[in-house]
Amino acid sequence: MENSHPMFTRHTDTLERALTAIAERSYWSAFPESPSPRVYGETAAADGEAAFRAYLGADFPLKDQPGVTDWVATETSPFGIALDVRYPHLDLSFLDAMAAAMPAWRAAGPQTRTGVCLEILTRLHAASFELANAVHATTGQAFVMAFQAGAPHAFDRALEAIAYAYREMTRTPATADWEKPAGKGQTLHMSKTFHVVPRGIALVIGCNTFPTWNSYPGFFASLATGNPVVVKPHPRAVLPLAITVKIAREVLAEAGFDPNLVVLAAEAPGEGLAKTLALRPEVRIIDFTGSTEFGDWLEGNARQAAVYTEKAGVNTIVVDSTDDFAGMCRNIGFSLVLYSGQMCTTPQNILVPLAGIATDEGHKSLDEVAAGIAGAVGKLTQDPARGVELTGAIVNDNVLSRIEKASRVGAPVLESSDVSHPAYEGATVRTPLIRKLGADDAETYGTEWFGPISFVVATDSTAGSLRIFAATVGRKGALTASVYSTSPDVLDAMEEAALDAGVHLSVNLTGGVFVNQSAAFSDFHASGANPAANAALTDGAYVANRFRVVQSRRHV
Amino acid sequence: MENSHPMFTRHTDTLERALTAIAERSYWSAFPESPSPRVYGETAAADGEAAFRAYLGADFPLKDQPGVTDWVATETSPFGIALDVRYPHLDLSFLDAMAAAMPAWRAAGPQTRTGVCLEILTRLHAASFELANAVHATTGQAFVMAFQAGAPHAFDRALEAIAYAYREMTRTPATADWEKPAGKGQTLHMSKTFHVVPRGIALVIGCNTFPTWNSYPGFFASLATGNPVVVKPHPRAVLPLAITVKIAREVLAEAGFDPNLVVLAAEAPGEGLAKTLALRPEVRIIDFTGSTEFGDWLEGNARQAAVYTEKAGVNTIVVDSTDDFAGMCRNIGFSLVLYSGQMCTTPQNILVPLAGIATDEGHKSLDEVAAGIAGAVGKLTQDPARGVELTGAIVNDNVLSRIEKASRVGAPVLESSDVSHPAYEGATVRTPLIRKLGADDAETYGTEWFGPISFVVATDSTAGSLRIFAATVGRKGALTASVYSTSPDVLDAMEEAALDAGVHLSVNLTGGVFVNQSAAFSDFHASGANPAANAALTDGAYVANRFRVVQSRRHV
Repeated sequence: MENSHPMFTRHTDTLERALTAIAERSYWSAFPESPSPRVYGETAAADGEAAFRAYLGADFPLKDQPGVTDWVATETSPFGIALDVRYPHLDLSFLDAMAAAMPAWRAAGPQTRTGVCLEILTRLHAASFELANAVHATTGQAFVMAFQAGAPHAFDRALEAIAYAYREMTRTPATADWEKPAGKGQTLHMSKTFHVVPRGIALVIGCNTFPTWNSYPGFFASLATGNPVVVKPHPRAVLPLAITVKIAREVLAEAGFDPNLVVLAAEAPGEGLAKTLALRPEVRIIDFTGSTEFGDWLEGNARQAAVYTEKAGVNTIVVDSTDDFAGMCRNIGFSLVLYSGQMCTTPQNILVPLAGIATDEGHKSLDEVAAGIAGAVGKLTQDPARGVELTGAIVNDNVLSRIEKASRVGAPVLESSDVSHPAYEGATVRTPLIRKLGADDAETYGTEWFGPISFVVATDSTAGSLRIFAATVGRKGALTASVYSTSPDVLDAMEEAALDAGVHLSVNLTGGVFVNQSAAFSDFHASGANPAANAALTDGAYVANRFRVVQSRRHV
Repeated sequence: MENSHPMFTRHTDTLERALTAIAERSYWSAFPESPSPRVYGETAAADGEAAFRAYLGADFPLKDQPGVTDWVATETSPFGIALDVRYPHLDLSFLDAMAAAMPAWRAAGPQTRTGVCLEILTRLHAASFELANAVHATTGQAFVMAFQAGAPHAFDRALEAIAYAYREMTRTPATADWEKPAGKGQTLHMSKTFHVVPRGIALVIGCNTFPTWNSYPGFFASLATGNPVVVKPHPRAVLPLAITVKIAREVLAEAGFDPNLVVLAAEAPGEGLAKTLALRPEVRIIDFTGSTEFGDWLEGNARQAAVYTEKAGVNTIVVDSTDDFAGMCRNIGFSLVLYSGQMCTTPQNILVPLAGIATDEGHKSLDEVAAGIAGAVGKLTQDPARGVELTGAIVNDNVLSRIEKASRVGAPVLESSDVSHPAYEGATVRTPLIRKLGADDAETYGTEWFGPISFVVATDSTAGSLRIFAATVGRKGALTASVYSTSPDVLDAMEEAALDAGVHLSVNLTGGVFVNQSAAFSDFHASGANPAANAALTDGAYVANRFRVVQSRRHV
């Protein structure tokens, strides 16, 4: 049907392997996560940093975008890195330019669009260090994490979304021959054509903490299925998405398409551009990561669009018993320290029976469990130079005031300390805070405290822990849940509770896998089955409604 | 993983064939459409009629449903057949019974649920004549149509939905083995389980005209994916769905499940039960066919649910030229006569250039085109005995008053006549009405006139016809579009306009395929890409969001 576009031909092997991966959901990764020079080349790190530095204090090279009226600079680095990048600020006429670009993109068909998306991804991969620097500077993630989560892991999630989109677009054939016996030796014979038709303009609303990782699945799922994509970055994390848009526009133009299929819509402080765009009739798909308040507003008000949201939740660990007390404490401790708990997947509530738990080290009281976890956190953060490479910096002042507020609830387990960053004088670094609460403190532990804040909650028993888990996650949702137990019955009960609550469960993590990390092509991120998110990254439901099939039929 | 349930094993071949059909979308049908005794057996017709008659004037055998408070009888047959079937009327406690039935149905897994759904379908097929009589009596469809659309064609659509649901549920494996190289010869090794988790209770809201055909896809898609289904029938077409629910409950019980996974919620006159149920927090999926007003209300208000709607639209034929004038007139005429135009797919607006068109019989003026179509209608309806076997009866008084109102707009082309039904003294039969309008009568032709009402609209040219098509379908949507032209350029332009409008197109139909008929497993019904419906029967998007995947993972 379609002649294969060279960009499709170039990436067929990758696509095929990704299609296998989403069918098997075993381990696979297309983009190496190690920033080592042996993998990325001797000059990659320096070249990437230089490319990043060239953007600072300058007009970002996107002035060819439609509708530029003025320039805005809104970023403040949690590390105190001077950014001052100015981005084009657009009037809404850019939406007309995007709509005008759509018919040719629709007509290009699934293969060509997929090929162009895979080429964009390849170019982004070549810019991994440039992106990593941008993510590091804007989010406060330590560099290695900014590299991994901001580049290869984000590309894996993007490729996963592209593979799902391709699979879904091609599950209906492009044409079909229809021959129906009509009696008396007659046959009704028709030829049918099935067109993949995009919904319209897609809006991707980026977040402050994971500007690429959380935006790429929606970005590529929408683009591959034929929709132009407007990217509205978080005002404090524009640069990683500006680089993304720049590269996407370059590849689109090279491939013979209108670069206005992808546009960056940066906003002035306080402009509320996401709301304006979300209500535009041309905008038919919205992907959003951020607050429950705005996510709920989008779902309730952007009625003309298919809305995919990832919001806040109350991630929970149920501790019942363990045959590796030290491993459990180390594992939980690490998940609290990583990016100072500023991941949407970081555990918050650690539910422990008041009477303590059985372990390989004998009975441990609730306070001993709390102290074990606090000790693991302390060990990871005691040396500031090594600690900051895990915690990174605090993304914004809201987190700081939340730490302050949390330090006044319940009883102390571990204080948060203010750490001087050895490399960045202006960095705001805080270690995790842990407080102890009772089962009746649901007003406190029943909502999300985004940041390095967690609660050891004393429950009357593991059964009580399961009830609290069901109640809090039922009401507020969660992206992750975790259980520690040596009892098959408890594990079964927890698995059933996780299914009821609709949250993904990790069981007895004591080694090198952490509850706040999900592996692309194998783990789903969010489930869409609880209030924390109405969709999962990435599954059939995430892509299937981003396009429609429109057919025509005629007699042969 | 799962042991195969005998009901799954029994229907594996059918399922496999259906999975092939949805991947190819060529001709296939699992249920013979001919009501011939050679196909269905010598006694099938009489047995089915006897089963139907046994329901009349009695309490329908569903008193085992939970929460029965009293009995309601709300049906009036368009043929004047005395029905007086009394259905159980429930208090809302039945929702608790349904919720309690859900965990075991969820735990049964995709295969078993699919097997049970296929067994229900097989039993429904055995009751084809019983269902056909019920559809005939409640909808006013002539018997053969009631048989075909009400039974085998509805079963084909149901099987199609089950196949899509099965494919979608099983695209993620039930388990996966994950081994990630962790450096230094170490491997992270986890075992992962992926559970298909239903959304919650599904509500199917039936319509008056196609109680089974329009309800079955949603019913089976929801049930197969693990959701209990409450069926709220149209008060005037309860019996076909009551029979369906009865059979489904019998099969569920036989298969070892709680029959309350499927419940009939009949309503008292004026009760507005659909609104009440639609806003219940337990109801997480809604399928609706009916008015734009109520469909829009559902989409706007039932925010806790995934809502699939099929609403009103303005189906349009663009007439540009033809090399088979007689065939075109016959084909259009037949599509207007069938069920007196009371199909959501019946053409309404026939757009013809004021200057007339080129045909194989030479130039035809606009009035000659109109007369050709009117003549075809007249020929099909002139003999009442044969005519009523196509037209059936008028479903309700709203259609009658609409015919009355339409007879006063524009200029006459064909009057609607009141026909005495040879078999049913109490039947209300009307033949199609055709009026002629100008291009500036958009206020009239721009909205749906459901019933045997169509308009020949005089346009300035075929380009003008395309503009009117784009404007009316863009605003009000459509389920079908059709074009007659001998010009490849016109056909291309119309195909592009159909893609823009998001409506399925039929090209130059002059034989035994009609624009108002869609073939299961090949044609999509509705597109979800225009205001007439937000979903298509049946595609990936129709099933993918009826369940979620929730995973658990643990170290091996």
